[in-house]
Amino acid sequence: MIVDSVKTSELESNKAESIGQSMYQLITKLYPICRSITGDGFRETLNIIKDYIPLEIHEVPTGTEVYDWTVPKEWNIKDAYIKNSQGEKIVEFKNSNLHVVNYSVPVRQKMSLDELKGHLYTLPDYPDWIPYRTTYYKENWGFCLTHKQFLELPAGEYEVVIDSSLEAGHLTYGEYFIAGETTEEVLISCHSCHPSLCNDNLSGISVAVFLAQELSKLSLRYSYRFLFIPGTIGSITWLCRNEAQVSNIKHGLVLTCVGDGGKFTYKRSRQAKADIDKISEYVLACSGKEYEVIDFFPYGYDERQYCSPGFNLAVGCFMKSPHGSFPQYHTSADNLEFVKPEYVYDSYAQCLSILQILENNQTYLNQNPKCEPRLGKRGLYRAVGGQAEEALDELAILWVLNLADGEHTLLDMAQRSGMAFNVIDKAAKALLKHDLLKEITA
Amino acid sequence: MIVDSVKTSELESNKAESIGQSMYQLITKLYPICRSITGDGFRETLNIIKDYIPLEIHEVPTGTEVYDWTVPKEWNIKDAYIKNSQGEKIVEFKNSNLHVVNYSVPVRQKMSLDELKGHLYTLPDYPDWIPYRTTYYKENWGFCLTHKQFLELPAGEYEVVIDSSLEAGHLTYGEYFIAGETTEEVLISCHSCHPSLCNDNLSGISVAVFLAQELSKLSLRYSYRFLFIPGTIGSITWLCRNEAQVSNIKHGLVLTCVGDGGKFTYKRSRQAKADIDKISEYVLACSGKEYEVIDFFPYGYDERQYCSPGFNLAVGCFMKSPHGSFPQYHTSADNLEFVKPEYVYDSYAQCLSILQILENNQTYLNQNPKCEPRLGKRGLYRAVGGQAEEALDELAILWVLNLADGEHTLLDMAQRSGMAFNVIDKAAKALLKHDLLKEITA
Amino acid sequence: MIVDSVKTSELESNKAESIGQSMYQLITKLYPICRSITGDGFRETLNIIKDYIPLEIHEVPTGTEVYDWTVPKEWNIKDAYIKNSQGEKIVEFKNSNLHVVNYSVPVRQKMSLDELKGHLYTLPDYPDWIPYRTTYYKENWGFCLTHKQFLELPAGEYEVVIDSSLEAGHLTYGEYFIAGETTEEVLISCHSCHPSLCNDNLSGISVAVFLAQELSKLSLRYSYRFLFIPGTIGSITWLCRNEAQVSNIKHGLVLTCVGDGGKFTYKRSRQAKADIDKISEYVLACSGKEYEVIDFFPYGYDERQYCSPGFNLAVGCFMKSPHGSFPQYHTSADNLEFVKPEYVYDSYAQCLSILQILENNQTYLNQNPKCEPRLGKRGLYRAVGGQAEEALDELAILWVLNLADGEHTLLDMAQRSGMAFNVIDKAAKALLKHDLLKEITA
Repeated sequence: MIVDSVKTSELESNKAESIGQSMYQLITKLYPICRSITGDGFRETLNIIKDYIPLEIHEVPTGTEVYDWTVPKEWNIKDAYIKNSQGEKIVEFKNSNLHVVNYSVPVRQKMSLDELKGHLYTLPDYPDWIPYRTTYYKENWGFCLTHKQFLELPAGEYEVVIDSSLEAGHLTYGEYFIAGETTEEVLISCHSCHPSLCNDNLSGISVAVFLAQELSKLSLRYSYRFLFIPGTIGSITWLCRNEAQVSNIKHGLVLTCVGDGGKFTYKRSRQAKADIDKISEYVLACSGKEYEVIDFFPYGYDERQYCSPGFNLAVGCFMKSPHGSFPQYHTSADNLEFVKPEYVYDSYAQCLSILQILENNQTYLNQNPKCEPRLGKRGLYRAVGGQAEEALDELAILWVLNLADGEHTLLDMAQRSGMAFNVIDKAAKALLKHDLLKEITA
Repeated sequence: MIVDSVKTSELESNKAESIGQSMYQLITKLYPICRSITGDGFRETLNIIKDYIPLEIHEVPTGTEVYDWTVPKEWNIKDAYIKNSQGEKIVEFKNSNLHVVNYSVPVRQKMSLDELKGHLYTLPDYPDWIPYRTTYYKENWGFCLTHKQFLELPAGEYEVVIDSSLEAGHLTYGEYFIAGETTEEVLISCHSCHPSLCNDNLSGISVAVFLAQELSKLSLRYSYRFLFIPGTIGSITWLCRNEAQVSNIKHGLVLTCVGDGGKFTYKRSRQAKADIDKISEYVLACSGKEYEVIDFFPYGYDERQYCSPGFNLAVGCFMKSPHGSFPQYHTSADNLEFVKPEYVYDSYAQCLSILQILENNQTYLNQNPKCEPRLGKRGLYRAVGGQAEEALDELAILWVLNLADGEHTLLDMAQRSGMAFNVIDKAAKALLKHDLLKEITA
Repeated sequence: MIVDSVKTSELESNKAESIGQSMYQLITKLYPICRSITGDGFRETLNIIKDYIPLEIHEVPTGTEVYDWTVPKEWNIKDAYIKNSQGEKIVEFKNSNLHVVNYSVPVRQKMSLDELKGHLYTLPDYPDWIPYRTTYYKENWGFCLTHKQFLELPAGEYEVVIDSSLEAGHLTYGEYFIAGETTEEVLISCHSCHPSLCNDNLSGISVAVFLAQELSKLSLRYSYRFLFIPGTIGSITWLCRNEAQVSNIKHGLVLTCVGDGGKFTYKRSRQAKADIDKISEYVLACSGKEYEVIDFFPYGYDERQYCSPGFNLAVGCFMKSPHGSFPQYHTSADNLEFVKPEYVYDSYAQCLSILQILENNQTYLNQNPKCEPRLGKRGLYRAVGGQAEEALDELAILWVLNLADGEHTLLDMAQRSGMAFNVIDKAAKALLKHDLLKEITA
């Protein structure tokens, strides 16, 4: 028996390692691509994801009005560099796509160092790292480089080339819908628009992809909708195009920065006490891992749009280290060393636990509400009475019967009784089998 | 004046001692009887109680359907013993009715020690005590003995005799109803089915009987219903037979384990914030005694049935040491030494305080709600103004006037003002006399 | 720039000092007058206030029924003294109006020391102070003197003269109404009936007068009603005569004991969570000063009447040291040394902050509630994205947009976001200018 248990644990641990490696592999594949909120890098990313899950790809034309916003021109880039007066390429897009300010307009120009400096971005506090900068909504151009290199730039004439295009085209996003028993949906959303940055947010993409793979194998109560979208404009576009169906979304998670070694962070939905908030907090509290639960605030990722007052969806944000809280954030140091297979697996495992409880967190109605039913005649009770020891499973049965008044979910029962969710769930399933409970459908 | 006060206190203390002794006497009378959930032992118990209060005795035939349950066959026992191979009675019902597993079917048989052992129950941790065991709902038989004796049993042939009967008959319970001004009822319930066990629950019976005696002398706002019933099946039977009137029960207490030396324990009703919960907690907090208030959980005594979701009555459970929390529980050590006159009296006194506050915990409506009434012209206020000292009684009057908006009971006022209930009550009575308050009838 | 800031700060500090001095000057002017709940001293007080603000003066005839009360006879006093057997005036009204028990009936009589003692009031614990006593509702007379003098009174015959009148007349009060944009009113009330006592309540009068002066210069959302009334009978009279308009009062403050050096004390309205309660607590928490917030209790000043259950107005009480908490209370030691210009100014400044937040504490509706509006195109957002630093003002804008659902006031937003009220208010004003918010009118 002990040998068996060790084997199971070994199997579990092997499985975890294998999933973690596959998740990391996906990150590795996606890392070199120069993504932006539009363009071929985003398309290439979705095509790689398509090898894992049957993604539906949507193209929304430039100029489409989406609420207060307009789908921008499509940006693509072939090459970019800065040449010094000796004709040497000293900053090169091919070495790191972070070198070019994302959404830079095409430029081909010679200029003095002083003039050039107005277009250069560095991180004086981290002189070896390249920052990540964007200029989505103001036509401009620029280069990012290490502060070390910046300090060593000699005076002289420089040639600047950005071989990009900013033209009418499309905004692209990927969507994967898994139909469950009901039309009620769980939304899993991750921004997929950042270039070579691993934690933010290749880690989120990877967790979403592997959750989708796993869920697609299961028989599900809820339907699940996975969105791989450009940040902000992507969620705005999706909400605008799908406004009529948005009310189907009953629960949701934004996944972001889920691959670093920091503690878990759950940011509550604007509703603050939605089921997804209670379950996420419960799962993290039971995880034995370090974690923090923080209140909603209107900054961060696409939860800003999902939780805008006109929608106010029950969508929380699942993270490890929140954006801005680690120095590597939005720099070249958010790379393949910064995220690790075990970290993305850990995030995946916690999210899966959250979704499993969500799936099972039913509300029941006791079918014998006046006095307790006789459990003994149904084999649900011990035979010899009078013993002082607390029979745990019986207590779970009694809790479920007592609280199955249509006002308490199984999680409410678990929390009120102090018993584990799966013990309560097992008791409920046993009672359901004996027709002592009835599921309440919303 | 000091002499008077000492006299009063002595009188009080003499009265307490005398009541405590009478309560203990009742326990002593009931102790030897072999009670069970049905049968003549239960009837004999009720007949003794009838010497104290005019109990109505109900008999419900075997086989009667009560919700999910059926009234069981009636169990009676004349004698039982185990004889060793020398023909000596080594375990004898006549020495302790705990020796026989309650509800054991008749048996008259010879068998080896090994075979016998499958029917023997002991307490290895307490080798000198006899455990209390039952087999109500599974036809079986057994003996309970000390572990010490068990270990010394030699191999050999044993003769086992249980001269019991398990036949169609009745379930018996006692009921005493005291009519008050209103049809709203307070339920006092205690299980009365245990054989020679003092704390669980001859103590509860004794407190209930003496509360009933005392209340029957008073002019009461509420009606009071006292139930002396077999545990579980008794409350289920009563609820089923009286379902139409159950909604009259507005408050209630289950009394159990109220005779030991432990601290007071009040277990809240399922409603958690019912008047009975607030008052019980308040009385214990004011008692100067050690106490604990615990939340409802669906295990314990007949509060399980009263608080089942189909009834959800405001019935709490008043205890000293809760069942299972003391080693003597359900053993021969729960005897006449374990309970003491002063302990049962203490429980009686706290319960009486609870009921007294319940009786007086009115909700009033200020008849002069716009600005304060002029108290001075009614002799309710001091004459010389400007003094800094707080006049306590006046403050109570002002609190009552301010909160007599129909939303606050006197207890709410006591708690919000931090003043004693009786000070607030006295102020309310004075205002009532001056027609400044009107009682709100529910 | 630093020079400028020092100048501003100096200007601020000069302005504070100048206001404080003016406030103290008013107290100095009012100090010598012998006020009571009726009579010429009250009229003289209102006439002095009239030099500052255009007060409307009301006269209510003796005998007028006001709810459970009757407007009393008018009391006036010309002189009073006690002469010893040598014909020396040993206690003289002209030295301190506290010497005469307020509302003493006329008396002109010779008597022994023993007889006289039944009419003398002293403070044994503070032998150098004269107490303040009243006998409004019981016809009586008396003198107050220092305990030191009392102890030295030789036996002998004394002549007692109180040249007062207690006759049909009027109860007088002052009212100043400042009309704002809406008919919703803020009530500022202070009792003005005490004779030579500075903290209680010339300090309250002074703060009310200077608040009224300041508010009269501003464009206001609310209307403001200032009441200078005799304690208790004054608020009862006003409420009774204005019952039909009382519901216009949405917020209010009773001002009392606001000139001593103790910490600030805010006593909540009976509603406990009214806007005035939340704002007062917020302002004191932000003030950097020592303060305490206490719950409503039905003792104190005119908040007792405003918060009687028939009105239950959102009126709190703003104080420094509460009545009865300082030994100088209701004694001759509550004099011009006990209050200080900087203390009354401090109270004035906190009250003004409270009223300013009240004025600005709007509830708004986001006009673009589905997703965030594009702030960039309105110049409300930075141009270069990707930076980690938190842009404070932008965050305020996002908070306002997110919570402008008609359920949150600006104060709610400030408290939920942890940002200062004025930062949130500024963000709201900016959004309002861009038609992204709409004011909700109640």
